[in-house]
Amino acid sequence: MSSVTLRSIGSFHIGGRAHVLQGQPIGRHQTVAAAAPREIDPNGDYVVGQMYAQEYRLSKPTSSLPVLLWHGGGMTGSQWESTPDGRAGWLWRFLAAGYDVVVTDAVERGRASWAPYPQIYAGPPIFRTKQEAWSMFRLGPESGYASDASQRRPFDNQQFPVHAFDAFAQQWVPRWSHHEEMALAAYGALVQRIGPCVVVAHSQGGGFACDIAKRCPTLVRAVVAIEPAGVGHDPGPNDTPHLLLWADHFQPEHRVCGAYRDSADRYWHRARQNLLPFDTLDLPARGIAGNSHFPMLDLNSDQIFNEIARWLNKLGL
Amino acid sequence: MSSVTLRSIGSFHIGGRAHVLQGQPIGRHQTVAAAAPREIDPNGDYVVGQMYAQEYRLSKPTSSLPVLLWHGGGMTGSQWESTPDGRAGWLWRFLAAGYDVVVTDAVERGRASWAPYPQIYAGPPIFRTKQEAWSMFRLGPESGYASDASQRRPFDNQQFPVHAFDAFAQQWVPRWSHHEEMALAAYGALVQRIGPCVVVAHSQGGGFACDIAKRCPTLVRAVVAIEPAGVGHDPGPNDTPHLLLWADHFQPEHRVCGAYRDSADRYWHRARQNLLPFDTLDLPARGIAGNSHFPMLDLNSDQIFNEIARWLNKLGL
Repeated sequence: MSSVTLRSIGSFHIGGRAHVLQGQPIGRHQTVAAAAPREIDPNGDYVVGQMYAQEYRLSKPTSSLPVLLWHGGGMTGSQWESTPDGRAGWLWRFLAAGYDVVVTDAVERGRASWAPYPQIYAGPPIFRTKQEAWSMFRLGPESGYASDASQRRPFDNQQFPVHAFDAFAQQWVPRWSHHEEMALAAYGALVQRIGPCVVVAHSQGGGFACDIAKRCPTLVRAVVAIEPAGVGHDPGPNDTPHLLLWADHFQPEHRVCGAYRDSADRYWHRARQNLLPFDTLDLPARGIAGNSHFPMLDLNSDQIFNEIARWLNKLGL
Repeated sequence: MSSVTLRSIGSFHIGGRAHVLQGQPIGRHQTVAAAAPREIDPNGDYVVGQMYAQEYRLSKPTSSLPVLLWHGGGMTGSQWESTPDGRAGWLWRFLAAGYDVVVTDAVERGRASWAPYPQIYAGPPIFRTKQEAWSMFRLGPESGYASDASQRRPFDNQQFPVHAFDAFAQQWVPRWSHHEEMALAAYGALVQRIGPCVVVAHSQGGGFACDIAKRCPTLVRAVVAIEPAGVGHDPGPNDTPHLLLWADHFQPEHRVCGAYRDSADRYWHRARQNLLPFDTLDLPARGIAGNSHFPMLDLNSDQIFNEIARWLNKLGL
């Protein structure tokens, strides 16, 4: 069994701005069952737009660059800690491989906290149903979902631990639309604070990583974008090495995923036309079949990790 | 510099129940700035009432009992990781002292996620202003708060790192009223899963810890309740060792804190009348002055930790 020796575990919040709330009625709330209700005045000083970072520092890192793990939409940093069926996640794999690791919760997600709506945020967030996740994460045909776990029909070669899908659903968090600039401002502040780093990012986080690599080219030394969503149009003169990873089962019914893929593929194509070091790892083309939108949680997550670690090693960072 | 050698870092969610949402209108959201809006159907299967647990297992623990760290109201497990001014938190201290540690986010807080209102939860949560925190956490007189950090006037001997108060505010999360039974159900499931353990709990978490110690007397082997809130009325025939910790500055203006304290003191008094092993550590009475509602974040947090570790050691668990 492997072990990891750390010199510190810590966390911090970063980013955000002061916000003063005024003119709201004073509430009366029983915050504790065994105590009387009390008046709570919601008017006053808040901070809005911060994110959360958890920092693991090794006693003897073998890489000088920490790895920043950025989760996807509707997720938190917990997606890097363990797989839903209880295996070690990529947080552990990167530590064991000699990298310091920073796991984050993006603005409004998990431990980053969120702000009241409609007083500060414009409106309510979006919640994900199991039905949507089954289809969006490409675990099986849309018709293969059932509320009863025993009745679900995943794709035949599915690598996602489908028997743990209900455990997976426990970790989803709400997300808002139109908060991209707020999230990017905090990610930018994070990278400024951490310094030179590697960003390994998933889905919505992958889109943010591509953007931050352009905004902070001297600090982001490599980007691994796993099934990124929301990748922009123009990579610009961005010579940071990028790896784009695609999993399996892009069926025609997965229109949303397909559109994200087309967009990212165009971005990579433009970068390569400009002779930038943008690589692609298409798992099925590499003979690795059946992966879902969450390769870091799939049954072969260690194999995928090794592919990424090998790509990073070749960069000689 | 100390180091800690781990054999695993992992996380899981536990508790909660299935909930089916029906009859809601289909939304249309632009979840990603670079992509077109898409239809999102909020109807379907959810899980509600789960909590989050992050598990640190040492290669060579010197105690057979893991320590469970339970945060207070409006907080998450991050309160155990670092102090707002960047010193190591009690997570690290307990690991370095030879205990496995489990850090949690209670139901509805942080990485535990929350459910939509008014569709599932009854209504909106409560948010904490800096003004309220300044007073509730007993950092200074109510009149000593100012939006401008340089104008704040804390108590003279204040141990809280007041210069980092704005950083502290970044980690507060919303909380709901009347979710106690939901939170307790998840804490109970957590203790069942972890097995025999020590619970170190703060504020609202301290009230939960007292309750769970009664519900799971064979599993909870010791409770450290740091300024607990919401402690019930009757300790019952509960021979689990309990330590009650009070900090400084219970001025008459801190009526809410005073009521929590009276309630917990009565609970401890009843337990001692029944000859149960309920101890109290009153920091000012011990000659340790100036602590806030968050002794684990105060400048002398290591000293307070050592007091607690000594009490635990004496139990010989």
